[in-house]
Amino acid sequence: MIYLDNAASTQIHNDVLEAMRPYLGNLYGNPSSIHRYGRLTEKALKNAQKQIAQIIGASPEEILLTSGGTESNNTALFGLLNSKKKIITTSIEHESILEPCRRLEELGFDVFYLPVDDTGMIDIQSLKNAITDETCLVSVMLANNEVGTIQPIKEISDICRQKNIPFHSDAIQAVGKIPINVSQLGVDLLSISSHKLNGPKGIGALYIRKGIKLTPLILGGGQQKGMRSGTENVAGAVGFGKACELALENLQENGENMRRLRDYTISKIMEIPHVMYNGSKESRLPNNIHLTFLGVSGEDLIIKLDEHGIAASTGSACSVKTQKASHVLQAMGFSHEQITGSLRLSIGIFNTKSEIDESIIILKKIVHELRQVSPFKTKYNF
Amino acid sequence: MIYLDNAASTQIHNDVLEAMRPYLGNLYGNPSSIHRYGRLTEKALKNAQKQIAQIIGASPEEILLTSGGTESNNTALFGLLNSKKKIITTSIEHESILEPCRRLEELGFDVFYLPVDDTGMIDIQSLKNAITDETCLVSVMLANNEVGTIQPIKEISDICRQKNIPFHSDAIQAVGKIPINVSQLGVDLLSISSHKLNGPKGIGALYIRKGIKLTPLILGGGQQKGMRSGTENVAGAVGFGKACELALENLQENGENMRRLRDYTISKIMEIPHVMYNGSKESRLPNNIHLTFLGVSGEDLIIKLDEHGIAASTGSACSVKTQKASHVLQAMGFSHEQITGSLRLSIGIFNTKSEIDESIIILKKIVHELRQVSPFKTKYNF
Repeated sequence: MIYLDNAASTQIHNDVLEAMRPYLGNLYGNPSSIHRYGRLTEKALKNAQKQIAQIIGASPEEILLTSGGTESNNTALFGLLNSKKKIITTSIEHESILEPCRRLEELGFDVFYLPVDDTGMIDIQSLKNAITDETCLVSVMLANNEVGTIQPIKEISDICRQKNIPFHSDAIQAVGKIPINVSQLGVDLLSISSHKLNGPKGIGALYIRKGIKLTPLILGGGQQKGMRSGTENVAGAVGFGKACELALENLQENGENMRRLRDYTISKIMEIPHVMYNGSKESRLPNNIHLTFLGVSGEDLIIKLDEHGIAASTGSACSVKTQKASHVLQAMGFSHEQITGSLRLSIGIFNTKSEIDESIIILKKIVHELRQVSPFKTKYNF
Repeated sequence: MIYLDNAASTQIHNDVLEAMRPYLGNLYGNPSSIHRYGRLTEKALKNAQKQIAQIIGASPEEILLTSGGTESNNTALFGLLNSKKKIITTSIEHESILEPCRRLEELGFDVFYLPVDDTGMIDIQSLKNAITDETCLVSVMLANNEVGTIQPIKEISDICRQKNIPFHSDAIQAVGKIPINVSQLGVDLLSISSHKLNGPKGIGALYIRKGIKLTPLILGGGQQKGMRSGTENVAGAVGFGKACELALENLQENGENMRRLRDYTISKIMEIPHVMYNGSKESRLPNNIHLTFLGVSGEDLIIKLDEHGIAASTGSACSVKTQKASHVLQAMGFSHEQITGSLRLSIGIFNTKSEIDESIIILKKIVHELRQVSPFKTKYNF
């Protein structure tokens, strides 16, 4: 089995699991309890918050633990609302931003979806034009989950700062892949997910810059200073913390390895005719490969790849089952045929060159076979 | 160390951890992915939902996975709202019900908090009186987290059914302790938490009776039929499912053992003069012991117990750090002195008779010592 779907989820690092073990074992106290059992888990939570803070250059008190990236994004969007009624986001956000925006539209908010160019990059001028006195929030993802395009976050935050508008960024695909520093980026809120960086599922975080006022999404016993109630997922938080520590330690090395494998894969696959390499060539996650094989269905591709033991995706795992055409590729101006033929390969820290070599051979074979029975066979002279 | 705070959190059962292991290891696919990795975790989720459903006599499709009991309660309360503006709950609910109710009051809802008698039992007549045509929701906990009182849920649901009002019950402390069947109880929604029944933290469920319409709290990729978006906590769900399976298998035996230890503990502790045994004697969780030691501070008691290696609580772990006087005991009409002297011992499936014997000796000694320096020494002739 070769796993090339690391943008969907990643394998838990052994050291992460080791760090979690005591908290799945004898250290089971409720962090809110004042006895020894509780103090030990509370201490573990604090340490996890410190580790998570470090990977984005934040303070531990600025880290709110959530149940994952989706909750982080929901918390940011619903939590920042005030009497102003305009929200600015992009047309290529993850559904965990777009769906809350759609609900807010139903509730009377005016949501502006910034367009992107054919590489998935937003236009700074259109952001400037969209901002009004009524704007209560700007949310722009740091790196896109389908095509890996990295947005000019610093430029965006400069504009938001000038206008005094809170700025949230969904950095779920970026943290652990590229250096992130919330101060340098100038973001006010930033979403992170554990299972995208070799930590466990079911845990995430929202960075909330000191001084930013947020209404909590989940209310109750007042855990995390009342900002997110509910007994904390201690083992999950500990694993997430350790995953951040490891990702930060190995950021440069992992990034270089993934970039090398990515570029090697692309160079080999581009030998196949009628293949498009999508997204930005320069401003891109080191682990993202997004391709269009003209005349082929991406879904057929991943089914065939799966039969050969290779895990890949047509785009976001979160929407693949709904069979909707990618809103990201639509926003990038892709034709129906281009969207249909798309494939995402996302590299992880455990992938090897020999896995890539094997995958390329199999992929070339599958593309050839599928093209022989393609209705576009004559058009492209396959 | 002797752990008698099982109402706050419980130790993960070894078999639960074993069941989770593969999903913390090689089975790391995103359940929304259509390749083999995804299919394997999706299958595991479905099995977990089946196991969770069984312990409450529900169908698997009626089980919504959440990040825990607090999210389940929030989802029920915020999700059931409609144009009607009255909510009925009780004055002794957990904060994860009361805090959402307080926010709803701020938003213009009329929330009626049913009073309770001195055993923590609601009065059915006051519920009947409170219901109006404007009532959109009734939420009454199945068993109280502090004093263990079990409410007459069937009687409540009969009334709600007659009036066609959705009825939610927070059963977080009850599931795994006493037999629960949602059909027999007649509830429409029911909250469960994994870490209260020897499963992992960070996972819970909301039972939603087929046909009940709910607005989701967390929006995004459309997981769980759009009712709760976010990549599912697979390992957590698998652990939760296994914990439910084990709890159901051993429900009678565990219940009898806990009840025996509970009654034995009470009989021994009541030998101490000026001790009150609080809550209902008949309609009570088998693992809950709630006592008031007059002339002593419960907080001093748990600190001293902790020094002797015994974990106990004054009440809810979720509010102990906020130092607020228990709203449950206040609602039961307790005096300040009675509230101050309160101690909760909650028994778990791993507690033994010898642990209880040792705890009783230590507790008696500590109470005696604290009473010798109590300002109430003369009053009670300690």
